[in-house]
Amino acid sequence: MTRFLTPHAATLPSVVPFTGPEALERQMGQTFRARLGANESLFGPSPAAIAAMKEAVEGVWMYADPESHELKQALARHHGVTPQHIVVGGGIDGLLGLLCRLTLEQGVPVVTSLGAYPTFNFHVTGFGGQLLRVPYRGAHEDPQALLDTARQTGARLIYLANPDNPMGSHHTGAVIEDMVAHLPDHSLLVLDEAYADLAPEGTIPTIHPDHPQVIRLRTFSKGYGMAGARVGYAIARPELAQAFDKVRDHFGMNRVAQIGALAALADQGWLADVQRRVRAARDRVSRIAEANGLRALPSATNFVTVDCGRDGDHARAVLRETVARGVFIRMPGVAPLDRCIRISLGDDAALDVLEEVLPQAIAAAG
Amino acid sequence: MTRFLTPHAATLPSVVPFTGPEALERQMGQTFRARLGANESLFGPSPAAIAAMKEAVEGVWMYADPESHELKQALARHHGVTPQHIVVGGGIDGLLGLLCRLTLEQGVPVVTSLGAYPTFNFHVTGFGGQLLRVPYRGAHEDPQALLDTARQTGARLIYLANPDNPMGSHHTGAVIEDMVAHLPDHSLLVLDEAYADLAPEGTIPTIHPDHPQVIRLRTFSKGYGMAGARVGYAIARPELAQAFDKVRDHFGMNRVAQIGALAALADQGWLADVQRRVRAARDRVSRIAEANGLRALPSATNFVTVDCGRDGDHARAVLRETVARGVFIRMPGVAPLDRCIRISLGDDAALDVLEEVLPQAIAAAG
Repeated sequence: MTRFLTPHAATLPSVVPFTGPEALERQMGQTFRARLGANESLFGPSPAAIAAMKEAVEGVWMYADPESHELKQALARHHGVTPQHIVVGGGIDGLLGLLCRLTLEQGVPVVTSLGAYPTFNFHVTGFGGQLLRVPYRGAHEDPQALLDTARQTGARLIYLANPDNPMGSHHTGAVIEDMVAHLPDHSLLVLDEAYADLAPEGTIPTIHPDHPQVIRLRTFSKGYGMAGARVGYAIARPELAQAFDKVRDHFGMNRVAQIGALAALADQGWLADVQRRVRAARDRVSRIAEANGLRALPSATNFVTVDCGRDGDHARAVLRETVARGVFIRMPGVAPLDRCIRISLGDDAALDVLEEVLPQAIAAAG
Repeated sequence: MTRFLTPHAATLPSVVPFTGPEALERQMGQTFRARLGANESLFGPSPAAIAAMKEAVEGVWMYADPESHELKQALARHHGVTPQHIVVGGGIDGLLGLLCRLTLEQGVPVVTSLGAYPTFNFHVTGFGGQLLRVPYRGAHEDPQALLDTARQTGARLIYLANPDNPMGSHHTGAVIEDMVAHLPDHSLLVLDEAYADLAPEGTIPTIHPDHPQVIRLRTFSKGYGMAGARVGYAIARPELAQAFDKVRDHFGMNRVAQIGALAALADQGWLADVQRRVRAARDRVSRIAEANGLRALPSATNFVTVDCGRDGDHARAVLRETVARGVFIRMPGVAPLDRCIRISLGDDAALDVLEEVLPQAIAAAG
């Protein structure tokens, strides 16, 4: 180990929270026939956003506006808040990292669900926080258990994704509102709404933007189809939003992405169309799963989690055989969620491949 | 202040190290006629890189390869090192932040030059490091003083930019090699080579890539003309390079930028052309300065630092009047360097505007 690392850094593993599909392709020596593992949007971004990004490439010699002024104005209008309530950053991943940096130090307790988003855990551990994990209740994160554990441990952060990844489940907005009403004073709710744009009506809670104990996270990676652009944003009361200026990489936004996000936000018609296509793709993946004797869980996201009906070893075998046949999918990392595989939604061409491959993979998994 | 911040975060100011030109434009209510303040490359990226980025926009629904495999392979070939020596990140700014995170904790001493790159200081302070600053010797950073102070204080990091920003000066590679040979055991040299691609022959030191006490930082923002893309890289021994995997945002790279950087690197002919145009522009800016009774300092970069011949207040007045006339420039932040203004190099159209405006600005500054 290099002598210059802090004692804490020295303890951290050099890990990638997820292996990228490109790395798998290099290992296999072939490209995937269908890329259904990273909850990317195969429906892509709005044509208007694509056009805006292509035009913006000509100006990539310029740094982006470090204040993301126009994008913050537009997001504020979109959400009925002020620009001072908005933090723009490099995807939700980047914002979670900054939030952990602002709030955590060695040993500070943080509560999340056992099997929930690993990148959040990566950042918590990376900043020395003490991770506490409560089990899911079936396919759902358990607000009451999160609250109870937070109260018992004095947790500073409570992470909850609604809709949830990797299970695709959701709580109603009313459930989240009730959770917010019962937050212990010492806890900030980190409400990851990455999939909010694809969720059924009634999923999004009403929370006053000045609420001192909630930060909401949104992204252009899912519904807006711009995962490779790295644009996410947080909504929080101005006091907390402004704190990100203490630590963020001010000139770190990609200019093309910043301009593309603005155009994507303006094309709500495209988003509505994606929502329709996502619903249709959910139905088709559910039918494919059922045709193979598997149970598709209800999805509020752009992926469908499929219960393979046995244990983690079996689901891992199904996943392995599916991947080996050129279909990139992922699965929850820990029991008991790891009885499932997770299939991102795609266009018909990709789902045709899935339909062809899944029976073979299940047969091979035995 | 929000109650959830760490005690250290609570002490940090919510600052932008530099005000962006867009913010200035909003304040002034007009756009700049010439954008010569951020050391961006008005010559832009290679047409091949632009074409690659436009094509890559179509695939922006996909996350980038978290390992930046192809780019690391290409950079390794370019520099005659292995891919394990390369870290790809969101510009040098982003990499400096990660490096500070890996190496600094409360009170760890770090040495830099008084007036050198503020974003490095921002990160050092942000991670609790104790900044020690040694004066420039004239227009040059002072390797001996940096070493002496590092030795006296037990500094963990020594920051040196070669060529230097904001003065545009450079040391020969031999000077840097000598500095490396005399590093105290406890110090890691952070060698910021952002402007290396534009420096005169003989500027780049020969340092063994496995040297345990040096990390070199390079960027696609300057010579390659892709500041808005946010692609930088570090060269360090594999042990240190791999440590970045402990803390980096693995899926944080913009896919379009990653692909664009690969294409830019492949077009060394374009870079050579930019180098020629930069040299010509240096000469022209020097002539413009001299025609106005100012002294242009020799430049090894894509900007020319111009000594306004009096004190900081005078240079600030010249800057203010230049900016007010629609030419965005910047200047060093601290005395005695702040007797200068800093003019990024541009194409003929931009320098025509500079030539028109500078005499008016000097007259107005009085």
